[in-house]
Amino acid sequence: MTLDELRAGVDAATLGRELYDCVTDLYPLCRSLTGDGLRETLRRLQRRVPLTVHEVPTGTPVFDWTVPKEWNIRDAWVKNARGERVIDFRRSNLHVVSYSVPVRRRMSLAQLRPHLHTLPDRPDWVPYRASFFNETWGFCLSQRQLDALEDGEYEVCIDASLEPGSLTYGECYLPGESSDEILMSCHVCHPSLANDNLSGIAIAASLGHYLRQVSLRHSCRILFLPGTIGPITWLARNEAAVGRIRHGLVLVCLGDAGRFTYKKSRRGDAVIDRAAAHVVRQAGDHVVEEFSPYGYAERQYCSPGFNLPVGRLSRTPHGCFPEYHTSADNLDFVRPGQLAGSFAACLDILDVLEHDRVYVNQSPRCEPQLGRRGLYREVGADEMAMLWVLNQSDGQHSLLDIAERSGCAFPALRRAAAALERHGLLKEAPVR
Amino acid sequence: MTLDELRAGVDAATLGRELYDCVTDLYPLCRSLTGDGLRETLRRLQRRVPLTVHEVPTGTPVFDWTVPKEWNIRDAWVKNARGERVIDFRRSNLHVVSYSVPVRRRMSLAQLRPHLHTLPDRPDWVPYRASFFNETWGFCLSQRQLDALEDGEYEVCIDASLEPGSLTYGECYLPGESSDEILMSCHVCHPSLANDNLSGIAIAASLGHYLRQVSLRHSCRILFLPGTIGPITWLARNEAAVGRIRHGLVLVCLGDAGRFTYKKSRRGDAVIDRAAAHVVRQAGDHVVEEFSPYGYAERQYCSPGFNLPVGRLSRTPHGCFPEYHTSADNLDFVRPGQLAGSFAACLDILDVLEHDRVYVNQSPRCEPQLGRRGLYREVGADEMAMLWVLNQSDGQHSLLDIAERSGCAFPALRRAAAALERHGLLKEAPVR
Amino acid sequence: MTLDELRAGVDAATLGRELYDCVTDLYPLCRSLTGDGLRETLRRLQRRVPLTVHEVPTGTPVFDWTVPKEWNIRDAWVKNARGERVIDFRRSNLHVVSYSVPVRRRMSLAQLRPHLHTLPDRPDWVPYRASFFNETWGFCLSQRQLDALEDGEYEVCIDASLEPGSLTYGECYLPGESSDEILMSCHVCHPSLANDNLSGIAIAASLGHYLRQVSLRHSCRILFLPGTIGPITWLARNEAAVGRIRHGLVLVCLGDAGRFTYKKSRRGDAVIDRAAAHVVRQAGDHVVEEFSPYGYAERQYCSPGFNLPVGRLSRTPHGCFPEYHTSADNLDFVRPGQLAGSFAACLDILDVLEHDRVYVNQSPRCEPQLGRRGLYREVGADEMAMLWVLNQSDGQHSLLDIAERSGCAFPALRRAAAALERHGLLKEAPVR
Repeated sequence: MTLDELRAGVDAATLGRELYDCVTDLYPLCRSLTGDGLRETLRRLQRRVPLTVHEVPTGTPVFDWTVPKEWNIRDAWVKNARGERVIDFRRSNLHVVSYSVPVRRRMSLAQLRPHLHTLPDRPDWVPYRASFFNETWGFCLSQRQLDALEDGEYEVCIDASLEPGSLTYGECYLPGESSDEILMSCHVCHPSLANDNLSGIAIAASLGHYLRQVSLRHSCRILFLPGTIGPITWLARNEAAVGRIRHGLVLVCLGDAGRFTYKKSRRGDAVIDRAAAHVVRQAGDHVVEEFSPYGYAERQYCSPGFNLPVGRLSRTPHGCFPEYHTSADNLDFVRPGQLAGSFAACLDILDVLEHDRVYVNQSPRCEPQLGRRGLYREVGADEMAMLWVLNQSDGQHSLLDIAERSGCAFPALRRAAAALERHGLLKEAPVR
Repeated sequence: MTLDELRAGVDAATLGRELYDCVTDLYPLCRSLTGDGLRETLRRLQRRVPLTVHEVPTGTPVFDWTVPKEWNIRDAWVKNARGERVIDFRRSNLHVVSYSVPVRRRMSLAQLRPHLHTLPDRPDWVPYRASFFNETWGFCLSQRQLDALEDGEYEVCIDASLEPGSLTYGECYLPGESSDEILMSCHVCHPSLANDNLSGIAIAASLGHYLRQVSLRHSCRILFLPGTIGPITWLARNEAAVGRIRHGLVLVCLGDAGRFTYKKSRRGDAVIDRAAAHVVRQAGDHVVEEFSPYGYAERQYCSPGFNLPVGRLSRTPHGCFPEYHTSADNLDFVRPGQLAGSFAACLDILDVLEHDRVYVNQSPRCEPQLGRRGLYREVGADEMAMLWVLNQSDGQHSLLDIAERSGCAFPALRRAAAALERHGLLKEAPVR
Repeated sequence: MTLDELRAGVDAATLGRELYDCVTDLYPLCRSLTGDGLRETLRRLQRRVPLTVHEVPTGTPVFDWTVPKEWNIRDAWVKNARGERVIDFRRSNLHVVSYSVPVRRRMSLAQLRPHLHTLPDRPDWVPYRASFFNETWGFCLSQRQLDALEDGEYEVCIDASLEPGSLTYGECYLPGESSDEILMSCHVCHPSLANDNLSGIAIAASLGHYLRQVSLRHSCRILFLPGTIGPITWLARNEAAVGRIRHGLVLVCLGDAGRFTYKKSRRGDAVIDRAAAHVVRQAGDHVVEEFSPYGYAERQYCSPGFNLPVGRLSRTPHGCFPEYHTSADNLDFVRPGQLAGSFAACLDILDVLEHDRVYVNQSPRCEPQLGRRGLYREVGADEMAMLWVLNQSDGQHSLLDIAERSGCAFPALRRAAAALERHGLLKEAPVR
């Protein structure tokens, strides 16, 4: 199957439903940097995408870091004097600070208070908090819940373990014609948060599912990694092979209603930067952000010792929507249509990466006579796209170059080039 | 005579009248891609400008194209049942689709209708239509005329011929000091349309007329070509010589009331691009457009196999004024003053091309003392222009470079340079 | 003492007072291009800054110029028929056109009038006028004074001398670790004008005073020169040594309430241009102007034979405030706080020039773990600055490059780099 056939074969409504179902399925699991919630997430994704699951033991050195202890949680609660669970992990896994050490104590509200986190400005929302590298414990709750707590003694229990174990991540490799790779990467360490990470997970999994069926020039590698320590571990274990990565995308926050935001790689002018900028520009309202050393896995991919051509595709970026890292980033915040639109943008970018080529006009002195070849009526090839491809195809400009100069959409140029090539007016340039 | 003397010697009012008279004289002729209307146009221009007329036989191969049959028309009409000419070529040559094959038939209005072209949104205007490469026939009329046609039988006559003959074009070559050429090109294939082509023809002819009397560094070549096939034919016949073209301008739509629009050559940074952009910028409100492979003869000059430094000077570009390609592009639409202003802009551009030079400041350490040389009062040289020329003349920056950096008008810099050179403060740099 | 210690040690209020006192002290002196007023100015500055005073004899050739005669004035007045001084040099030295030749005559108001200069639009202000290179004489007065003059005979006296003598300038050289120099230059030829030249003089003198106490990498050279002929003379006498000037600033109009204006050197991309642009950008509302060959001593430093990397720092530039070159540019127009702010901006620029370095991240593959080094809490180093320094320190980007790319303030980056260097995460790159 070709990429075009894939796109023709899957309708947006079906796709949106599939993506949203995936988000819904994974939403209740208590993911963290390590542990069984993350393992179960990858297990479920394996139904849909051919995923190798890696386990890296606690204590393994990975560059300047060490793989941390594994965290697992069974239950957690705060009970009031009447024995009622006033904070209950079973109701939402956000209620426990991720990586909390085990605790079982009685204490007064005053003693408990420093361990309770709320969002006073959003009194109905529960914040998401984690403390991966400081051993501590805590609960998150809404401001209204906190305000309702009476003075008195509370019983506190976090039935968790923080012990040697392993760090888990998933990897899907789809071999293409060439060993040149396109990397796609998402993070899998957040618990019940729908946009900030499940949207990226669902799209990455669907990319794996569908692209497995497609013949591509590039090989594709799709990574499902916990944040920070995940890409660091993957890079440390695959250092020798990163030279094959030609293009890469971090996928995150792709289910909300915002416009697309593409954040450039550290290089700033990599092909992925230009391809993604072209695609989001064609999509209408959009933002192209310069690189900054903050955010998600791009921080590691774009560290100066790697400097990989990896950008980030989002809709509204992290921290720019109030629901970010709160219980309001829930199943209502992401929508099937928005997920499907993001998936389509990924395919559009892939389409550029796969089909960007340099051609040479075989009739370069004056325009060739398109009319007598019936090319003005050629299905799917518009005249301006043909004129641009002919004019710029001097062996120096790729279709993406032409897309940038002309403002024509890449697919129109690609179809124009194909039509011209069929009529002998264009030949692919020898590889430079 | 120098260019300065030419400019001092011709006043704008006289010039405007001459240009407008030329437009008026040529307006009634039925020009087309080939044929006697075009021939007569060139013949009349020969009164004013030393024009060589070339005839290229039908069937001559020119790159990917072939010189077409020659089209001539004597008369054309549609008569109603009462024998009245309801559409009449004698009233306006726009009434016949250019290159219509001969026809003489009786038919019902229903049969006739597919051959009738109107502008429903502009019910009083007659459109201009041509069908050069598809053998067909048709009439153009106003929507009101069409609406007034009664059902019934009509007699249709196009008394035209489409037969082997030749393609005609005109060429004026004015030798200069050097064989380096400035190309000026206009199209001559449109019938009674005043702005879209007669304005360009009149200005090109007047440039030939006046520049013949001027000593120039560059040789000038002025081409009067039918659209598309004209420049293709000229380029095919002059391929070996195009290397002499250093700068070029396509002249079109120069008589309307709009601001100047300069469209860059494919190179984008050719001297002509910078010179013309400077001149239209100095003229006030203006547009500088990037190259695109659409429009007039620049499509051929800027095809990748030639890539000549040829831009296009217009006022309102084709397709951007509603009168475009309609009977409303008539003798009221172009005005003498607008034509004269366009002619002056051409001379301004020529002035830059002719006088752009690199100088070397002979007193480069600190400023020279202008006061003791009386240079602060030097007629026609202003202080800022002198300071800029002195400061930038290190052998690396031409006057045009300085014009771009300083925002000073080129003529002011040129006069400043002349004054400084007279006082020994500046010398022309050796040719790089 | 380090630059940081200097900045910590002097509070803005004290500094503002010192700068304003300097302006106040020098305000009454009648400075001109040469003469005793200028000499006395330098003498008073010597109390504060180690200044070498140079005397260059009249007639000395300096490039295209000649050192002019020395001008001194003792008194000047216009007396009415009643013997009253209606214009009196003793009330303000602005009343006499600078460099007026001596005169002692009786004349009618009509005869006197061509020698009287006013500002009709600002009827209470006295203009400042000079005639350095045309031998003439004149008086400046307010329009109201002029309007009050009665017809009748006047006695005119300018008790001045214009005779062979010398041109005087001051120079302060502060040796640093390296012989690479930072040049600071102000003009000292204006009489009682507070912003347009005393603000620059006071700041330059305080820079000399304080920087003498500081250990710097660069040597500093601070010049107190009369306008135009001053920098020309200095350059002529120091031609062989100008190659040591790595960075330079002309200091002028720094006491008014306007935003900062930095005017770039002729080079446009010199380190001083980027450093000063960064500093004024960080200061908030600001203007960065392109170079133009007009203004102050930068005209000479940036003449093409020298092309030194010297820009100009001002608040409101000359000619852009109505008080410019009038009696309204007085001690009320400049304020201590504004002077202190300008001084601080100079130190900020110096800080960039002194501390701009290229580092190499010693842990370049992925981010190093800042947390376990306590670097997230490091005093004075913020996280984003650390991430930017780590990400960009690949041996190709200096701290100033990083400041430009990141938008972080230079001092934050410098402190981040210092913290990272202390923890072994960064090393200075070998000199390229």
